Amino acid sequence: MTRDSYQDASVLVTGGMGFIGSNLVRALVRLGARVTVVDAQVPGCGAHPANLDGVRDCIRLSTADIQDTDRMGELIPGQQIIFNLAGEISHIRSMTDPLRDLAINCAAQLQFLNRCRLSNPSATIVYASSRQVYGRPKYLPVDENHPVNPVDFNGVHKHATEQYHFLLRQQFHMRTICLRLGNIYGPRQAIHQDCRGFLDAFILAALQRKQIEVFGDGKQLRGLIYVDDAVEAFLKAGLAGSSAAPVYNVGATAPHPLLEIAQTLCRIADCPPPRLAPFPPERLSIDIGGFHANSEKFRREFSWFPRVGLEEGLRRTIDYFRSRMKTSSGSASGGKQERRNETL
Amino acid sequence: MTRDSYQDASVLVTGGMGFIGSNLVRALVRLGARVTVVDAQVPGCGAHPANLDGVRDCIRLSTADIQDTDRMGELIPGQQIIFNLAGEISHIRSMTDPLRDLAINCAAQLQFLNRCRLSNPSATIVYASSRQVYGRPKYLPVDENHPVNPVDFNGVHKHATEQYHFLLRQQFHMRTICLRLGNIYGPRQAIHQDCRGFLDAFILAALQRKQIEVFGDGKQLRGLIYVDDAVEAFLKAGLAGSSAAPVYNVGATAPHPLLEIAQTLCRIADCPPPRLAPFPPERLSIDIGGFHANSEKFRREFSWFPRVGLEEGLRRTIDYFRSRMKTSSGSASGGKQERRNETL
Repeated sequence: MTRDSYQDASVLVTGGMGFIGSNLVRALVRLGARVTVVDAQVPGCGAHPANLDGVRDCIRLSTADIQDTDRMGELIPGQQIIFNLAGEISHIRSMTDPLRDLAINCAAQLQFLNRCRLSNPSATIVYASSRQVYGRPKYLPVDENHPVNPVDFNGVHKHATEQYHFLLRQQFHMRTICLRLGNIYGPRQAIHQDCRGFLDAFILAALQRKQIEVFGDGKQLRGLIYVDDAVEAFLKAGLAGSSAAPVYNVGATAPHPLLEIAQTLCRIADCPPPRLAPFPPERLSIDIGGFHANSEKFRREFSWFPRVGLEEGLRRTIDYFRSRMKTSSGSASGGKQERRNETL
Repeated sequence: MTRDSYQDASVLVTGGMGFIGSNLVRALVRLGARVTVVDAQVPGCGAHPANLDGVRDCIRLSTADIQDTDRMGELIPGQQIIFNLAGEISHIRSMTDPLRDLAINCAAQLQFLNRCRLSNPSATIVYASSRQVYGRPKYLPVDENHPVNPVDFNGVHKHATEQYHFLLRQQFHMRTICLRLGNIYGPRQAIHQDCRGFLDAFILAALQRKQIEVFGDGKQLRGLIYVDDAVEAFLKAGLAGSSAAPVYNVGATAPHPLLEIAQTLCRIADCPPPRLAPFPPERLSIDIGGFHANSEKFRREFSWFPRVGLEEGLRRTIDYFRSRMKTSSGSASGGKQERRNETL
């Protein structure tokens, strides 16, 4: 059982100060794991020190870069499970600066994984990949056999790093699993960073009681996963047996149209009704249209299913950020924007 | 018609001092094209100055690296067709030094292609990819819909760079075509470099009248293409219309077992019969077993078919290298090995 297995387990989380990473770290601490967090806080990758508030004393924290093989050589040995979530997350930025995306998502990962192979070949490695590797779907829902055809450099590089993980399996008999995640949302998501995704923009607007802009006709389907459900998927994948597949979709059971997601948010956050707007060109070119993943394989093999519905998840998310804003308003100094950046 | 279309056409060949690149350059010169060659002679990538003997005065030659965006900014504008053959070719070396492979096959290509997009978005770009992207075949013959599942870092990176070319099409409306090449052989192949492939090793042994070692049971099928036929495929792809697909297999019609290839070589070169030998571990791990590509799509759409059969092609290859060795033996100075390295 999950809870028992993580008690006293040695676990490394790369990107552990980011959105999903920090939520995973918090869960691991609750389960009694011995957690090491590595996060170089590369600007724009979603890391925020406040994401580890309340658990910092329970973990070992390194701000080294994962490509620093000397430092990694100290941290990797002895870890039973490595949750590998470090990475550049912005699709938009990968189009304006593909070399940066290559450096973070491929070159750094290549060095990190090589160090894992040399220092700790018996660890299980779970990689946070993305449904973006599929590109525009040829059929729905998209299963793991769907062709890979990414529409941006971020997708190309995430897929290359999936393949690095496959090579560790094929060539070096290591246990690696890639999770192709759908849209994850919830507390600690990086709503304030540049080049944010649509969900970040929706939630930020709702919190500011501004009108949410939905690009296109609003009918595009997206399967949303509340972060606690995504964390549960990582925890289960970390305990995978040797028969596990190299890659799994982890997406929602039922997709929602974007307009419905925006309307639900408005109802919860009490902001003006959303409006449809034309796509900005730089977003249209990498938009994949409606998307809905088939996650049957992961659900069946790992007895995983999302527990938190859309309305409940969005409510928890808004409540989380509102409570952070209140805490922030009560503090003594600092401009509004700075305070928000510091605490959200 | 091919011959007319290349008369006075401005053409850039990256990796034009390498095996396939130099044969392509020589053909382009014969067709009256204005040829610019870029080749930084990165060690191990197959470049050799002697490959351009006899045509050097007919071309513009740059030894800049393709990632040198300033220099490329001078060479790329005005080119009608860009044959993009620069790259690291060794599968074996990609496993021992994957970062080098990433730097050459992805980072340098990313910068080069970005410069093409900015300086010359109307050029047609033809990329030399590899059947290695498919990995171990799930069915034979392998068509373009076969899943991509490379077994080495070279295959991962070649595939990522294919996808860079796809993105130029999808996002920037450029004309790019990727050719997934089978095993090419013929004059100027890099038989002397380290980490050579099986065909290089076979031919080198035959030339030295040593016994050829065939790893495994010798029954593995390979579709071999004589380099002139591969050059013809590039020439046709360079004139592709807007309806061309993003990727094509370019392989042989009829595959041959490795042992038969070795036996044919021995007959031609008059060397001892080949012997079967166990795979060295580093080669076994990245061996893809029997492989045979379905190139129907390219043959149909481009009216291309290989003209040079195995026996004829191997005979021409042996004759070429023997004649180079004779020339070399007639020279006045230098050790045998140095002379051979210089002239082959």
